[in-house]
Amino acid sequence: MTLWYWIALVAGFAAVIFGWLQSNSIMKADSGSDRMREIAAAIQEGANAYLNRQYTTIAMVGAGVIVLLFIAFRSWEVPLGFLIGAVLSGAAGFIGMKVSVQANVRTTQAASKSLQGGLDMAFKSGAVTGLLVVGLALIGVVAYYGILTGLVGFAPNDRSVVDGLVALGFGASLISIFARLGGGIFTKGADVGGDMVGKVEAGIPEDDPRNAATIADNVGDNVGDCAGMAADLFETYAVTIVATMVLGAIYFGGLGYLGSIMLLPLAICAVCILASIAGTWFVRLGQGSTNIMGALYKGLIATGVFSLAGLAVAINWALPNGFGVLDGAASELGLVGDVTGLDLFLCGVAGLGVTALIVVITEYYTGTGYRPVRSVAKSSESGHGTNVIQGLAVSLESTALPAITIIAGIILTFNLAGLYGIAIATTTMLALAGMIVALDAFGPVTDNAGGIAEMSDLPSEVRDTTDALDAVGNTTKAVTKGYAIGSAGLGALVLFAAYNEDLKYFAETAEPGSFFASVGEVSFSIANPYVVVGLLFGGLLPFLFGGMSMMAVGRAAQSVVEEVRRQFREMPGIMKGEVKPDYSKAVDLLTKAAIREMIVPSMLPVLSPIVLLAVIWLIAGPASALASVGAMLLGVIVTGLFVAISMTSGGGAWDNAKKYIEDGNHGGKGSEAHKAAVTGDTVGDPYKDTAGPAVNPMIKITNIVALLMVAVLAHF
Amino acid sequence: MTLWYWIALVAGFAAVIFGWLQSNSIMKADSGSDRMREIAAAIQEGANAYLNRQYTTIAMVGAGVIVLLFIAFRSWEVPLGFLIGAVLSGAAGFIGMKVSVQANVRTTQAASKSLQGGLDMAFKSGAVTGLLVVGLALIGVVAYYGILTGLVGFAPNDRSVVDGLVALGFGASLISIFARLGGGIFTKGADVGGDMVGKVEAGIPEDDPRNAATIADNVGDNVGDCAGMAADLFETYAVTIVATMVLGAIYFGGLGYLGSIMLLPLAICAVCILASIAGTWFVRLGQGSTNIMGALYKGLIATGVFSLAGLAVAINWALPNGFGVLDGAASELGLVGDVTGLDLFLCGVAGLGVTALIVVITEYYTGTGYRPVRSVAKSSESGHGTNVIQGLAVSLESTALPAITIIAGIILTFNLAGLYGIAIATTTMLALAGMIVALDAFGPVTDNAGGIAEMSDLPSEVRDTTDALDAVGNTTKAVTKGYAIGSAGLGALVLFAAYNEDLKYFAETAEPGSFFASVGEVSFSIANPYVVVGLLFGGLLPFLFGGMSMMAVGRAAQSVVEEVRRQFREMPGIMKGEVKPDYSKAVDLLTKAAIREMIVPSMLPVLSPIVLLAVIWLIAGPASALASVGAMLLGVIVTGLFVAISMTSGGGAWDNAKKYIEDGNHGGKGSEAHKAAVTGDTVGDPYKDTAGPAVNPMIKITNIVALLMVAVLAHF
Repeated sequence: MTLWYWIALVAGFAAVIFGWLQSNSIMKADSGSDRMREIAAAIQEGANAYLNRQYTTIAMVGAGVIVLLFIAFRSWEVPLGFLIGAVLSGAAGFIGMKVSVQANVRTTQAASKSLQGGLDMAFKSGAVTGLLVVGLALIGVVAYYGILTGLVGFAPNDRSVVDGLVALGFGASLISIFARLGGGIFTKGADVGGDMVGKVEAGIPEDDPRNAATIADNVGDNVGDCAGMAADLFETYAVTIVATMVLGAIYFGGLGYLGSIMLLPLAICAVCILASIAGTWFVRLGQGSTNIMGALYKGLIATGVFSLAGLAVAINWALPNGFGVLDGAASELGLVGDVTGLDLFLCGVAGLGVTALIVVITEYYTGTGYRPVRSVAKSSESGHGTNVIQGLAVSLESTALPAITIIAGIILTFNLAGLYGIAIATTTMLALAGMIVALDAFGPVTDNAGGIAEMSDLPSEVRDTTDALDAVGNTTKAVTKGYAIGSAGLGALVLFAAYNEDLKYFAETAEPGSFFASVGEVSFSIANPYVVVGLLFGGLLPFLFGGMSMMAVGRAAQSVVEEVRRQFREMPGIMKGEVKPDYSKAVDLLTKAAIREMIVPSMLPVLSPIVLLAVIWLIAGPASALASVGAMLLGVIVTGLFVAISMTSGGGAWDNAKKYIEDGNHGGKGSEAHKAAVTGDTVGDPYKDTAGPAVNPMIKITNIVALLMVAVLAHF
Repeated sequence: MTLWYWIALVAGFAAVIFGWLQSNSIMKADSGSDRMREIAAAIQEGANAYLNRQYTTIAMVGAGVIVLLFIAFRSWEVPLGFLIGAVLSGAAGFIGMKVSVQANVRTTQAASKSLQGGLDMAFKSGAVTGLLVVGLALIGVVAYYGILTGLVGFAPNDRSVVDGLVALGFGASLISIFARLGGGIFTKGADVGGDMVGKVEAGIPEDDPRNAATIADNVGDNVGDCAGMAADLFETYAVTIVATMVLGAIYFGGLGYLGSIMLLPLAICAVCILASIAGTWFVRLGQGSTNIMGALYKGLIATGVFSLAGLAVAINWALPNGFGVLDGAASELGLVGDVTGLDLFLCGVAGLGVTALIVVITEYYTGTGYRPVRSVAKSSESGHGTNVIQGLAVSLESTALPAITIIAGIILTFNLAGLYGIAIATTTMLALAGMIVALDAFGPVTDNAGGIAEMSDLPSEVRDTTDALDAVGNTTKAVTKGYAIGSAGLGALVLFAAYNEDLKYFAETAEPGSFFASVGEVSFSIANPYVVVGLLFGGLLPFLFGGMSMMAVGRAAQSVVEEVRRQFREMPGIMKGEVKPDYSKAVDLLTKAAIREMIVPSMLPVLSPIVLLAVIWLIAGPASALASVGAMLLGVIVTGLFVAISMTSGGGAWDNAKKYIEDGNHGGKGSEAHKAAVTGDTVGDPYKDTAGPAVNPMIKITNIVALLMVAVLAHF
């Protein structure tokens, strides 16, 4: 155990403690009038109902998986790793959401005093979630690695260590897909269903307290963008650290400084957590300024600059030779010339650069100031159809630049330090996750704050302030989704590399008579038809998954519509404002729908690698089957990346095109163009908040299940 | 030259002569009243204007390409091959469309007498286009192969023969992308623009003669589904035969019966052309039946059964040993055990099976009798947004079964006869193209027939008959698009195999000091990052291309809207029916827009392989560059297949959901659900008629440009 091990552990705890301090300061703030507290309590109650039922279901599924893992591996490291990953990931989302539904009403109250106050409160709440995500994830990986190598005494590159860490990632992944998908179905079922029956049928405004789906909608914001995003990035973060460690164990296994290499990703994450904590201080409005986005970007940029400095420190002190040559690394990585610490530093810089570019590109495609959103807004003038056509066109186009950024990142970092360079770049990119999640989890708080202001009849100036905060929340949500997908794509490539290297490793070290001794050469050539088959099969998963989850939203929304209609019908006092609608019924119904609907799509990425392996094995033997599964992993990344980016950027563009019209352009609120833009926004909702973001965990679960499958096979 | 050479040539001419006889019989038919003839004349005039301008532009681009090819290859075989492919493909679309705009009014007239008469006339016209496509394509390949090997005396597997035939495919491809994309932009610009200004703004019905875009809309139907589809399938057909011949030349080059192998795909196409001609006789309604779709399917099934028999004949007599063992083939194909004629026969059967399954699956996803379309129709009840959400969900889901069918086809045929087996299956699948194009080109004739009935105020019974024909036309258009994409995907895989085998061949036969002698090993392993880069870069092309072409439709539609608005404003007599609008102005404007808009997207597949090769070459040398380009070809197939299927099936589902509502369900015509369904249909239009189908030629151009690029490199 070197110094950096303890620094990483301390950084993890620092994040958690900072989050705890922030949440204490939130709880102490004024929570407004009785009416406000009453509404907030309804949201809190709904959130609790959702969380309890959701996590109960997940716990049952998780218990089953633990038993299966124990049977498959016949050891405690894998099931325990899974448990740690699942519990910590669950905790990050759970606590984050608990804080978020306390911060919303306090943000409304603070916003009634000043914009700065509202911004502070909402961002503080976001920062709690963000820092919990990276803190708990880092603690989990560091502690479990320490237990396995320190307490139990396994070598750093022992397969038990690798399998245990991969299982930790799997635990996080499973939470992630449930949270993302279940949360996405819940939130958009409430949103779409509520709008359909409220705005369209009953003709009452959004967030009107007479609509029984209103509270569910507010709960849903938190479920999707707080708990869902937290679980998603927890997973990508943990999985990427683990995959980088696995690749390090494979490439540097024979070199004397393996221990330092194993700690390098932990060191990078540690310094970036400290940078993120420091960055939160920079989120403030300038003297007399109302540029909220600017204030948030100041925080993000500060985090980036500090991370750059921290990265240099980590490389210099964590590696045996600092920025100098890593002896023997080049030949292990299959490169010509030396690989140096400087090369790894530059890979990290590239990771930061990819993050910056993706943020800028997503902002371009979803911001109201640029061509794409304006073109969607303009096309709304000629009707619903042309709005949707233009939105779809923008969504398709928006994939190109992020993909080219990722391609450039791959080429650059591979030339610096081979596949390990790609892994270090991805780790550095993800090390910023604390700050990014903070920006994202800011969104639902401001959204809720606006809803509470509306429902408690606060003066319109308060609503104006919360609206300003909320508009920024829309952009940060879109930007962080772009980041989440870009990093997930790169993270999945690292996982895929780990799969390939694992196969090589097992083939080289197989004992005579064991499974891998008999497999023979696995041909990953794209001229091998089983590789083509794997690519096509992997390619279809994001499409099928996307279709299934969009349909799930439709069904969930339909059930909300029927429930709200029933309440209007059976309780005529609601429309007159004399009777309170039964909010909890709508929440309960949606919770059930979300949990029921998330099961089948979630099974798709879990079962697909297993089914493909079995089918191709039967037809063409194990070598072709392993090749086909490997290609499947790549296929799911290739189409998944484009499907996810197009959905989230397109959805953001539709949303902001509507906002742009509401700001008084193309006829403003109530015009025909506005109606068309509302249609586009409705279409974009499940695109950007359900199907698109859920593709991330889907990609990674497919990869991680394949890794575990190979690890199981290695036992035979 | 064996017997089968001449049979293929005779079959090609038989198709052309049959088409000529059919078109004569169409021209002799009654063309109705003066009013009908007047409208038909306007459509014909518009079609001529479009064709002349479109083909002039293509001719100029083509002349430039010929010069470039001559400079690159410094031989006549390649430019001449390109010219033959381009001219014949152009001729098939040109003549087909000329016949189609004569048949439309005659179909109206025949439909005023009987349903059978209308069906006969419209199908006859479709059959002309279908048989011209396969006839001219087969004549082109057969004759050019005969010239090169017979007259000039090259060996069948000489590179000049291969390059010349590939260039023929390239000529067809270039026509195809222009026709598909230009045609798609024209037709949907007219359709969307006309509906926007007519139905939505002016409140006049579809096909109302007061709308200046009406004639353009009718011209557009032919431009898209007659000329566009003809060029598309001409290309897939020619390219697949050529690629199968190239693979045959590579695999069987050292065996004594190479000549027979080279003729096998021609023999298969020959028997299937005869089967298609025979199949046309079976297209008739049963006694007293009005099941038009059934009549068309009877023709398709008969063609399939005859083709099966013909395939057996071709295998038995064209191969040296009939259904018996092909000596030495197994080791050349890298298979264990013998490869027999029976194996190749079964591959052909698999090709027919894939066709049948894709037809059934597409019908399921786009037919009004099944869950997907009904779910879209039902979701229209709750508004525009939910209609579009459900339609997108269906479009995503609809990709899974066709992809699994293709995967199964690949696995099955590869196990029978290696990569060559996949090629034979694809050839057989495409050999049905004559009948399939006939079904597709039936669509615009019936669509026009309905428009002419409406505009010439014929009794409503006539419109009922043409509507019945038109509804079937919608289904056949969707079904043939599914077929076109499935076959294009498989055809592209064959091209991709040809690329790989070409690289191997050039590397093995490279003379010392030549380019390929210095390249070194090309690693196609998916663990090679440049392969991943290629996959991602290829993957982005269909998305970017789709986005660009959807935007092009939006712009073209906008220009139509402005023109029609101007005419309404400046000629107030139009709305009163006193003044005829200036139809030709709208056609002219759209023609210009279509040609202008098609240039940039068409360049995407042509330039992408070249740019990728150059960039990766600079960074990592030629071996990585060739690997990356190979992966790009696969990447473009993987995402292209899903993008194209989702767009065409989704578009079909939206279209028929509207029809289903118009048939009186969910409130029928004029209801809120109907309005929502109209929005979905508008969104589906550029999806299914512009972006989706244009992805086919895009995929194949990328592949064929790569093949030519490699051939050029082999000269250094």
